[in-house]
Amino acid sequence: MGKSMAGHLLKAGHRLHVYTRTKEKARDLLTDGAVWEDAPGSLAARCDLVITIVGMPSDVEQVYFEEGGLLANLRKGTVLIDMTTSSPELAGRIADAAKKKGGAALDAPVSGGDKGAREAGLSIMVGGDRHVYDEVLPVFKLMGRNIVYQGPAGSGQSCKMCNQVVIASTMLGVCEAMAYAKKSGLDPHTVLESISAGAAGSWALSNLAPRMIEGDFDPGFYVKHFIKDMGIASESAEKMDLDLPGLALSLKSYRELAAKGDGDLGTQALAKMYGVGPSK
Amino acid sequence: MGKSMAGHLLKAGHRLHVYTRTKEKARDLLTDGAVWEDAPGSLAARCDLVITIVGMPSDVEQVYFEEGGLLANLRKGTVLIDMTTSSPELAGRIADAAKKKGGAALDAPVSGGDKGAREAGLSIMVGGDRHVYDEVLPVFKLMGRNIVYQGPAGSGQSCKMCNQVVIASTMLGVCEAMAYAKKSGLDPHTVLESISAGAAGSWALSNLAPRMIEGDFDPGFYVKHFIKDMGIASESAEKMDLDLPGLALSLKSYRELAAKGDGDLGTQALAKMYGVGPSK
Repeated sequence: MGKSMAGHLLKAGHRLHVYTRTKEKARDLLTDGAVWEDAPGSLAARCDLVITIVGMPSDVEQVYFEEGGLLANLRKGTVLIDMTTSSPELAGRIADAAKKKGGAALDAPVSGGDKGAREAGLSIMVGGDRHVYDEVLPVFKLMGRNIVYQGPAGSGQSCKMCNQVVIASTMLGVCEAMAYAKKSGLDPHTVLESISAGAAGSWALSNLAPRMIEGDFDPGFYVKHFIKDMGIASESAEKMDLDLPGLALSLKSYRELAAKGDGDLGTQALAKMYGVGPSK
Repeated sequence: MGKSMAGHLLKAGHRLHVYTRTKEKARDLLTDGAVWEDAPGSLAARCDLVITIVGMPSDVEQVYFEEGGLLANLRKGTVLIDMTTSSPELAGRIADAAKKKGGAALDAPVSGGDKGAREAGLSIMVGGDRHVYDEVLPVFKLMGRNIVYQGPAGSGQSCKMCNQVVIASTMLGVCEAMAYAKKSGLDPHTVLESISAGAAGSWALSNLAPRMIEGDFDPGFYVKHFIKDMGIASESAEKMDLDLPGLALSLKSYRELAAKGDGDLGTQALAKMYGVGPSK
């Protein structure tokens, strides 16, 4: 996703400096004129705006807080934007640290996946100071279509958590209905014809249920990444003393799925836990 | 719903005989030319086609199987259609009994609610013999827009159960996300702006979450009716030896809601269990 997103900035005429752990992944960008940097810290020292999108909150922690990282080397006035789906609490700590160094930070996780990144059609949920958001909005517009300011630091991440919390239980409903259809001897395609357009309708039902039926478990969004996101939401809910039993149930089922070795499949593979898929 | 649906048949020029437990509810239809019958059995003895839509499976059982009921008085060749959301197993028993009497029966539950019934826009899911379905299809077309033949007797009910099973867990996801948004101090409307159009999107999120936020718990679809439907799905799943933990969790939460006296609210009132609604 990072490569597609950076490509849009380059195409728009921005001078782009890049760092990735695996330099090979940046090759096309470098061919197109991006400048290589050997460490995150060099980016923070040289650029007006630094955008990160990495894997886990622990990766974010490292890139921002390690010795050669972004915060230790931050140039005054530079804006840091983390677009990783990460924890609201960590986003808050980064924003505080950036301010202390005379810079600023936004949390701006996205939804829309690889396709959204390629087509500059991401939904971007932004937390941080409003005036910083207003300043960098033109850059967000190069990468996304639905860009919404959600509130102070961490609010972008909290909004993304809401997104994942909805999906968590919705996936249970879709899988359970497909399992019920199969057990009842119904044609699941015919069931979808009846139920997709009404009160049961959802993006997941329209887009993922057909793939469940066909046994197509290729990743649009990885099981392992969804587990990461639900884990963050779950911990954060617990800290807020908020009981989310649907989220807990979904996370438990997905962890069982991953324990069977299916973490690299798409989230629709949850259907396997219910015996849904093409009949052998 | 029955009144609107019968009205469409009358307007299309069909000769309509009616029976309801509360005669008053049929007054407008009688004014418009419908003929009153004193018992379900009289309808079965006099009409080519009898359509029922009542409350609980126990009501269906009574209307079909009691002494003055439909089956005991069924005229040869008459088609019985039950449009109540009821159990697949009961639909199968009705179809068997109708055949033995030289008639036929279809199960044809609907989704789309009062509005769908008024606007002849219902989704109708039909189970029974295909040739009987083909024969009465013009009548279904007077009441609905999305009419799908689902398979042998009981399949219409099974399909409707799939619909309710999807909704059951989807509602958990929507409520939990709105609760997370509130606890995080986000503006829930702004959250919906970010998440409604993407992978978290659903009919429930777009239509019911805004009502949860406003504390508008007026019934589109009653909590008590949803509990009935989920109860049927749950029993039927158990008979098929199918474990549906999302459905079980949702049913448990809705039963707790009803136990607090909220059975006559709309299904979006589940949000109350999560403390969602306008801040006082």
